[in-house]
Amino acid sequence: MASRSPLLTLTTDFGLSDHFVAAMKGVILGICPGAVIVDLTHELRAFDVTEAAFTFGESWRWFPKGTVHVAVVDPGVGSSRRPILVEAADQYFVGPDNGVLTTALSAKGAKARAITASKYFLSPISATFHGRDVFAPCAAHLAAGTRPAAFGKVVVDALRLAMGAPTQTSKRQWTGLILKVDRFGNLITNFNVREFPWLLTNPFVFTVGFEQIDVMASHYEQCAYGELYAIAGSSGYIEIVMREASAAKRLGVAAGAPVDMMGWAKDDA
Amino acid sequence: MASRSPLLTLTTDFGLSDHFVAAMKGVILGICPGAVIVDLTHELRAFDVTEAAFTFGESWRWFPKGTVHVAVVDPGVGSSRRPILVEAADQYFVGPDNGVLTTALSAKGAKARAITASKYFLSPISATFHGRDVFAPCAAHLAAGTRPAAFGKVVVDALRLAMGAPTQTSKRQWTGLILKVDRFGNLITNFNVREFPWLLTNPFVFTVGFEQIDVMASHYEQCAYGELYAIAGSSGYIEIVMREASAAKRLGVAAGAPVDMMGWAKDDA
Amino acid sequence: MASRSPLLTLTTDFGLSDHFVAAMKGVILGICPGAVIVDLTHELRAFDVTEAAFTFGESWRWFPKGTVHVAVVDPGVGSSRRPILVEAADQYFVGPDNGVLTTALSAKGAKARAITASKYFLSPISATFHGRDVFAPCAAHLAAGTRPAAFGKVVVDALRLAMGAPTQTSKRQWTGLILKVDRFGNLITNFNVREFPWLLTNPFVFTVGFEQIDVMASHYEQCAYGELYAIAGSSGYIEIVMREASAAKRLGVAAGAPVDMMGWAKDDA
Repeated sequence: MASRSPLLTLTTDFGLSDHFVAAMKGVILGICPGAVIVDLTHELRAFDVTEAAFTFGESWRWFPKGTVHVAVVDPGVGSSRRPILVEAADQYFVGPDNGVLTTALSAKGAKARAITASKYFLSPISATFHGRDVFAPCAAHLAAGTRPAAFGKVVVDALRLAMGAPTQTSKRQWTGLILKVDRFGNLITNFNVREFPWLLTNPFVFTVGFEQIDVMASHYEQCAYGELYAIAGSSGYIEIVMREASAAKRLGVAAGAPVDMMGWAKDDA
Repeated sequence: MASRSPLLTLTTDFGLSDHFVAAMKGVILGICPGAVIVDLTHELRAFDVTEAAFTFGESWRWFPKGTVHVAVVDPGVGSSRRPILVEAADQYFVGPDNGVLTTALSAKGAKARAITASKYFLSPISATFHGRDVFAPCAAHLAAGTRPAAFGKVVVDALRLAMGAPTQTSKRQWTGLILKVDRFGNLITNFNVREFPWLLTNPFVFTVGFEQIDVMASHYEQCAYGELYAIAGSSGYIEIVMREASAAKRLGVAAGAPVDMMGWAKDDA
Repeated sequence: MASRSPLLTLTTDFGLSDHFVAAMKGVILGICPGAVIVDLTHELRAFDVTEAAFTFGESWRWFPKGTVHVAVVDPGVGSSRRPILVEAADQYFVGPDNGVLTTALSAKGAKARAITASKYFLSPISATFHGRDVFAPCAAHLAAGTRPAAFGKVVVDALRLAMGAPTQTSKRQWTGLILKVDRFGNLITNFNVREFPWLLTNPFVFTVGFEQIDVMASHYEQCAYGELYAIAGSSGYIEIVMREASAAKRLGVAAGAPVDMMGWAKDDA
């Protein structure tokens, strides 16, 4: 770790009304007193590993080298699913081996280890709160300078979720889905402008719920109130939006809902 | 900046369930590794610049000299509204020029600059997330020691909202409004005891919704359960309250609702 | 205080949408610039001192020696209830004398002081926001090195809530209650496995709402979807749970609801 204070982030579905996040922070600060702890989010949908993987992926990539990230959405807590430690993009990741760390595992040169060195766990370990008893203390020891190799052996079968690029169903048709509904009711689709750059200039029709969207806006203030638009969101994904209103409520859809797209790519005669 | 760690606060309407706040923090810590980041609130009503200006104003004034504040409630993101930097009360303020920084701009000797030095922005800039791409990096560079003048030229036309003192409508009558409903359902009005000191001692009647309030309480435990009272709140504004219950629910009103007051000022024969 | 940065935590029912928590942080950082402030939770149920005492108790015990904790759930703010400072378990606790600090007061060797040294308060003091005007500044002065004795004299009558162990109503029957419903809808009862270790191995029947629970699970993944189970939670308390679903919704109960248990203790012929 660098000479500055070790930086440690937390991402969970624990919410903020219980003692869960507080207990994790106490454990971390007991092991690594100088740690700077940053909350990414604790309001992930309970048990939804896919949404967690997406949100966490859009968060950690902005952090500096050497950051230690803990991500715990863990419906399998207490069962045989492994705790893992991932080294990727010069950062460190600690969490359950259930796909929540997919975006780290997908980074170039990522290396995963199964955490087996139980001397770094709290003792005794509860069956229902590995955030406090396993993940927080391991991350704190890592932030305090313990080398990754001390936690366990490299594994090559850590679970990666198919984060789902859209499927092409005919020459001009694709089927994708809603990755996430954000606070404003914007629908983040899995159509990314890196893969579909021609959506910014060519004709298209998105079908979501019972409505069709065929206008690309460049920013919200350009949008008429009460109308649906596509927009290239800040993560590169196409979003379905309304100006100062919730597209999710209007369309009655949630994360996981299908998104059909018909479009005319650049070289399409 | 002083020798202690630079202090940086964040105020947004981004909520805590998405990756937005996390990305801003990552960007800040990448640019200014030693920054201490303090969340003021991220649960402001979406797009409500007036409520944001009030809540932010009641927050920043308690912070020490040299603090850098970022406030982003920004329905016009991506349009031509300017990013600005304000120096006021020995503190620094970064946000959109849409009124959210009104209380800083109203402080004695406040100086505003239009931020034009795009070298301090992330590149490329998204059209929908200037919190991450413009405001966070500028604030981080400022906290890291870049001088305010480096960000752009002084402007004199930064937008200030009329935060609305009540209007006198006749000798003994005033019309005001609800500035904010707090978590407990207390209604914070725009009648301030600095302007209406006689409300603490003289007869008055507030009309809110369909009810009238004519008793001033000095603290909550003095209030009978189930009754409405006026109270001089901790910001100096008169609040309409109930003991351990929500005045907002009882009266069916929200921020912006009108508040009529009839009162007998001190020297009123 | 140690040479590392002073560590200060905040626990309130103020929520995160107002300026209340922000103002407390500003006051603290103004008095003790190097303080590291950790939010335990601000989403406690408004005015519910009993739930607050439980949640705070499960949080502070994980923190290192020397930590200064501020806990404010304070329906009696502005009345004659005292502010107190508790020294316990090598940590410090500041809050109203209304039971919210019960778990600290119950620690071995705990010492309480009535805070009377008003020179450490903000001036003037509001009648409705002692979090900002009394508790935050006292805690900050304490974190900055002021000795506990400077705040006031030792008292022996600080208020402790009966946190309620279950009552035995017949040879094989006990009546307890729900201490808290957590974010996932798990019901945390006041039956603790330290007092009822035989629940892990012997037959039992819990009755909550209109349903009976008689199977002890060791972790969630072992549970069938749609069924109710007992489980020894991470705090040692027996919880009534469902797999990836809310037992609270299923049973229609909230904190405070009664829990009846019939069981066959170890040596029970």
